[in-house]
Amino acid sequence: MTGVFDFRVRYAETDQMGRAHHRHYLVWCESGRTALMRGNGVSYAELERAGVLLPVSRVEIEYRAPVAYDDEVRLYTRVDRLRSREIVFAYRFVKRVDGALVARARIHLVCADSEGRPTRLPAKVRETLGRLAGATPDS
Amino acid sequence: MTGVFDFRVRYAETDQMGRAHHRHYLVWCESGRTALMRGNGVSYAELERAGVLLPVSRVEIEYRAPVAYDDEVRLYTRVDRLRSREIVFAYRFVKRVDGALVARARIHLVCADSEGRPTRLPAKVRETLGRLAGATPDS
Amino acid sequence: MTGVFDFRVRYAETDQMGRAHHRHYLVWCESGRTALMRGNGVSYAELERAGVLLPVSRVEIEYRAPVAYDDEVRLYTRVDRLRSREIVFAYRFVKRVDGALVARARIHLVCADSEGRPTRLPAKVRETLGRLAGATPDS
Amino acid sequence: MTGVFDFRVRYAETDQMGRAHHRHYLVWCESGRTALMRGNGVSYAELERAGVLLPVSRVEIEYRAPVAYDDEVRLYTRVDRLRSREIVFAYRFVKRVDGALVARARIHLVCADSEGRPTRLPAKVRETLGRLAGATPDS
Repeated sequence: MTGVFDFRVRYAETDQMGRAHHRHYLVWCESGRTALMRGNGVSYAELERAGVLLPVSRVEIEYRAPVAYDDEVRLYTRVDRLRSREIVFAYRFVKRVDGALVARARIHLVCADSEGRPTRLPAKVRETLGRLAGATPDS
Repeated sequence: MTGVFDFRVRYAETDQMGRAHHRHYLVWCESGRTALMRGNGVSYAELERAGVLLPVSRVEIEYRAPVAYDDEVRLYTRVDRLRSREIVFAYRFVKRVDGALVARARIHLVCADSEGRPTRLPAKVRETLGRLAGATPDS
Repeated sequence: MTGVFDFRVRYAETDQMGRAHHRHYLVWCESGRTALMRGNGVSYAELERAGVLLPVSRVEIEYRAPVAYDDEVRLYTRVDRLRSREIVFAYRFVKRVDGALVARARIHLVCADSEGRPTRLPAKVRETLGRLAGATPDS
Repeated sequence: MTGVFDFRVRYAETDQMGRAHHRHYLVWCESGRTALMRGNGVSYAELERAGVLLPVSRVEIEYRAPVAYDDEVRLYTRVDRLRSREIVFAYRFVKRVDGALVARARIHLVCADSEGRPTRLPAKVRETLGRLAGATPDS
């Protein structure tokens, strides 16, 4: 039910404080949720080719401890909520060396067509993510 | 009391949806708050050279309408709350062409010394930001 | 004949060496050439909407002196060479405070249609850039 | 003698042309050379902690074919030249699906102390990289 995405902090992701800049957590979350979806048979690349977009509508991140260049980080991703036109993913970042909590996030995606208009999630996606959410999705 | 930071969306900031990728709002907020501080006599660059860091501890962003390559955007920044070891900035992004709301954000910064330990904001910074917050800062 | 693009180094553009990371020069060059084109009546945003793409095919950058957070930098951009399907821009970065040379670059763009196939530059673009190149473009 | 670094193109690395933006190749090269060094017992993170910096002084990249979101890419990295104060790495990017050439690059790094002054590479690094270069390094 929970996706695992492991990565190392890249040099280019550091800033002059000597830690990963806070914007990169959003990029890592993106990798986390596409890995979770891919691992469950949903390719986000294919969704887009089929005209289904999932833009981000809301972000909340709580930074608890910094990560530095070359640190190995594990990101847990799960589906927190599923609606007909919205998905909420929840994330937890930990350091691999000791499991210490690094950050927590929640990111809301809405479903849009290729013109950017709100639309319903495709049935296959709702079913797959609904299963991951461990609950029947609301309609 | 409110800082104004104008910018154009860079090509490199777009993604394949044809809009600015959501992580860049964090970078623009950073420019917004340093411009506000600089305009009020506080140089963040000098603060860091003096061993005062202001890492981000919490982010909330609500994306309301996308912006595209070359769009001209105005970012309003204000001090939303000031504590002895924390500053909260509030942000509002609008399109310059029609004033339409693009996004809103709140970003929490904590004060740390050069070792990353929590510490009190320097008196000069508290005074300046307190004035901008339009209120006596809590101690 | 030469475009001028002024900017400040953003905090997010620094790395843990305390200087702007070398990848950002490519982004600044992009801003430099679109500003040069815009100032001469060619909107790159409109070109793309009309199905004309200008992907980068070759980059050479020589880094001479680092720039730091909040440094004010001036970027000079000029058309170095113009062919029927290729444009080469030349760039020079200097610090505004003392005019010291920061970096030099040459970037090749090729003209492609919306499918990515090589194609000739639109007549209007060739004429405008040819004028900027200070020479009759080769055919 | 050659390092191998595999990665997928991240969504955040795309631009509105629907391909990876050209600046990210520099970031991937950075990952490629640190992986090569790490695999041969040299930690770039440790080097920096010991006060040895390796800033980039020159970049050449030739882009041959675009890569898209989620594409799996393999990056080959080798030491092309080694001098007392300079290392040149050579890179070749290929698509994993068919081995097609994506890009080639050469990146020059210089050795600097923590103040940014040019200095000689530490003996251990010269020895390791010299072995990888398949030649006795020049002194």
